[in-house]
Amino acid sequence: MTSSSNLETVATGNPLAPFDLSAYLRDRQAQVEAALDRSIAVTYPEKIYEAMRYSLLAGGKRLRPILCLASCELMGGNSEIAMPTACALEMIHTMSLIHDDLPAMDNDDYRRGKLTNHKVYGEDVAILAGDGLLAYAFEFIVAETRHVAPERVLHVIARVARAVGAAGLVGGQVVDLEAEGKPDVSIDLLTFIHRHKTAALLDACVVSGAVLAGAAAADIERLSKYAQDIGLAFQIVDDVLDITATQAELGKTAGKDVQAQKATYPSFWGIEESQRQAQQLVAAAKAELASYGDAAQPLMAIADYITTRTH
Amino acid sequence: MTSSSNLETVATGNPLAPFDLSAYLRDRQAQVEAALDRSIAVTYPEKIYEAMRYSLLAGGKRLRPILCLASCELMGGNSEIAMPTACALEMIHTMSLIHDDLPAMDNDDYRRGKLTNHKVYGEDVAILAGDGLLAYAFEFIVAETRHVAPERVLHVIARVARAVGAAGLVGGQVVDLEAEGKPDVSIDLLTFIHRHKTAALLDACVVSGAVLAGAAAADIERLSKYAQDIGLAFQIVDDVLDITATQAELGKTAGKDVQAQKATYPSFWGIEESQRQAQQLVAAAKAELASYGDAAQPLMAIADYITTRTH
Repeated sequence: MTSSSNLETVATGNPLAPFDLSAYLRDRQAQVEAALDRSIAVTYPEKIYEAMRYSLLAGGKRLRPILCLASCELMGGNSEIAMPTACALEMIHTMSLIHDDLPAMDNDDYRRGKLTNHKVYGEDVAILAGDGLLAYAFEFIVAETRHVAPERVLHVIARVARAVGAAGLVGGQVVDLEAEGKPDVSIDLLTFIHRHKTAALLDACVVSGAVLAGAAAADIERLSKYAQDIGLAFQIVDDVLDITATQAELGKTAGKDVQAQKATYPSFWGIEESQRQAQQLVAAAKAELASYGDAAQPLMAIADYITTRTH
Repeated sequence: MTSSSNLETVATGNPLAPFDLSAYLRDRQAQVEAALDRSIAVTYPEKIYEAMRYSLLAGGKRLRPILCLASCELMGGNSEIAMPTACALEMIHTMSLIHDDLPAMDNDDYRRGKLTNHKVYGEDVAILAGDGLLAYAFEFIVAETRHVAPERVLHVIARVARAVGAAGLVGGQVVDLEAEGKPDVSIDLLTFIHRHKTAALLDACVVSGAVLAGAAAADIERLSKYAQDIGLAFQIVDDVLDITATQAELGKTAGKDVQAQKATYPSFWGIEESQRQAQQLVAAAKAELASYGDAAQPLMAIADYITTRTH
């Protein structure tokens, strides 16, 4: 463990110093969107590239790539060295959405206000588009990352791969499928699901940005805790929004959890207590970053945004 | 391009010198089997790890990992440095089989004489087991490869990822799905399918073994041609065996291609001409390796084995 005392001595001034998160997110989202658009060209066989692009470029908040870029910058790197990994993380996130939406899984017809991948391209192509995005994510990191020591790129690949696999996202999804419709799902099991389905990939985003910048182990540990906490908070808020928001706000079918008799945080805690727990997690996440001062403003503001968003 | 003249000067003695391929394959298969068995431990959530292991350890010839190990040794590396990549390639091959067998794809109930993954674990878990194996393959390469320069490991990851994605296996599969049932499939299209569905991954096996050993570009090029040729030959023979072999020999449903009205090499050329074309490709593959002399015996014998195998 390397000390991060050089960063700890940077005292934060006013944590409420003006930081325009909407402008920051808009700016970053545009950068990410452009990079994603460039990341996959359509060539023969067109159908698979089109299917991959259809879901990859279907909008969304691009929170995962933005977290990766912000973390890299906080640790002293420039965002350019993290952009290929940021795009790869969005490819992986997209893969998980395409596969989750399949009839054999959540059987969803809409995602981000558009028809799901298999509704447009068929189940077979949707499965392959997911596989293609997952494989391409790793190729893209290797092919496009510049000015980073190869050891660091390998570290990123291992961490990202672990976050997607059975020890992360895939494992969370399996437990989620098993839990569906069961009356005896505990809050611990629910938290396992979300720590793996959601928080693991957010963790990979923030950690890989830091690794690319050459962050010390202690800083990586701190950022990892931040990501875990906002990841869980994100999911609690998602559960709440499934109840309180409309389909138009969500861009996907609302009320699906209740309909599917899914265990959710509001089903344990009610809506108000769920919101309080989410806020507590966000506060804990922000506390991890307190020592970085103003440099942490983007990550601080993103944490706040998670509990205040309406979609 | 670096010269490979040091290897070219090693004149081959008698190319028919006794080489016991069955013993070699048996030995290597046992090594690979043991390494695969160690590669994935069952932990919570057990179901996903069991599903991954079910298909990964369902037998098979293990030709892909064996090619990777043999190529590494031919280029002067020891097989230990290539074993993690060899296992990863088998994980990826297994992923492609699990997803190909799904109802939305080839809808196959049997594979290697056992029920397919989704028949045992359900479609949802089968999709996730494939995703888990694909992600884990990359984690495994990074985590387990020892005594290899990180640049080489990155090169391997990029090459392997490319072979799986839309530029390789996934792209071939999409074209295959589109071609199914169509009366106007050309021989060029059929060859595109197999160069991508089969040859691309074999190419990644042979090339990554060579890269790990630090092979020169000219040697990699030669080995790549060898792999492309045996890959296509392998598929031609597969098409022939689908007609001539029994289900017991194949360990999967026989006669499926004819039943599905799939374009196959025998449907263009007949069985005899298909066999002749496969033999010609094998001869071309072996010619690429002629300059390596006795050291190339394993790869030479594997090339021969492809046209003489009965399952």
